[in-house]
Amino acid sequence: MKLYEFALAPNPRRVRMFIAEKGITIPTEQIDLRTGQNRTPQFLAKNPSGGLPVLELDDGACLAESVAICRYLESLHPEPRLMGTDARDQAFVEMWNRRMELELFTPISRAIQNTHPMFKERMKQFPDYGEAQREAVKARLERMDRELEGRQFVAGDRFTIADITAFAAIEFGSMMGVVKIDPSLERLTRWRESIASRPSAKA
Amino acid sequence: MKLYEFALAPNPRRVRMFIAEKGITIPTEQIDLRTGQNRTPQFLAKNPSGGLPVLELDDGACLAESVAICRYLESLHPEPRLMGTDARDQAFVEMWNRRMELELFTPISRAIQNTHPMFKERMKQFPDYGEAQREAVKARLERMDRELEGRQFVAGDRFTIADITAFAAIEFGSMMGVVKIDPSLERLTRWRESIASRPSAKA
Repeated sequence: MKLYEFALAPNPRRVRMFIAEKGITIPTEQIDLRTGQNRTPQFLAKNPSGGLPVLELDDGACLAESVAICRYLESLHPEPRLMGTDARDQAFVEMWNRRMELELFTPISRAIQNTHPMFKERMKQFPDYGEAQREAVKARLERMDRELEGRQFVAGDRFTIADITAFAAIEFGSMMGVVKIDPSLERLTRWRESIASRPSAKA
Repeated sequence: MKLYEFALAPNPRRVRMFIAEKGITIPTEQIDLRTGQNRTPQFLAKNPSGGLPVLELDDGACLAESVAICRYLESLHPEPRLMGTDARDQAFVEMWNRRMELELFTPISRAIQNTHPMFKERMKQFPDYGEAQREAVKARLERMDRELEGRQFVAGDRFTIADITAFAAIEFGSMMGVVKIDPSLERLTRWRESIASRPSAKA
């Protein structure tokens, strides 16, 4: 297997963290999104959507989409469980992972893509829309602080893929100037520090 | 179990189709999104995100997010397999389902939310952004037509959740004036007719 990824992008980071938490190693190849290496015919043959990461299997089949890659790796290396234990727990972990993806990761990405100078050349920007997304992010982070009352992790008492999704989104948003966590959000601040202190956060 | 849903909304339709394909029955309760029944304190206690559908389990726990609900139902009623057979097949079905969701369902929803008069009162609209999303939908449908060359269904030779996601998106987009499939897209037209002819399409 081989993972096509890009060190600076948030979706590859999700899969890198997942792999690190599993304690496994997968060879990687960097595809530089900034220079359009994901838009070459060679790469589009692996993933016509042009996104990263992509997991190339030993028979050459290419699996795209971070969560699909993580679930496949979870099936090959079940422990530690990062996507839930039994069927019921798996369902609630998926619910939380999707909330973090759709309600946090997505608006952070859209705020960045529509307002950051780095994306000016790459796509048509809609700055007003991007600003509205920034407000949505702020509101969602405040809600996340309340959700973390009495629980150590996003989906409950156990570290899961939902923590990875939220952390990758927040770190990318911070780096790009879209996220700033107010220190008054104490539970969120505490959660973020606890995730940042895991070895996988450096992956 | 009980499913909170709304007959006219696309995400509940995904789960209704999934349930119909499984041949099972789950009692439902309508939550009218148009009159804000999903924003009452009673409903927000079930799903703080305010989205539909929500599956209430017998112990009162509430599972939100369509795909999480479908995966849970797949675990309870494995046949017919709608989310893949073995781990590898499940990964590729998930990839295709996410592509249909992120690259088709999402831009259709955003085009509608940002341009349709029905959403004027419900959210701040960004019509230019909505128009750009409409163009993205058109391009993705053309690509989908090419992807369907030599395959009967979105993820290959078997009907899966990826077909449900794409179909629910396209039907909602058509109803709301955002999707119009050009008859020259013959494979897409043929696929759509084949899905529409399934009994579950009426669910």
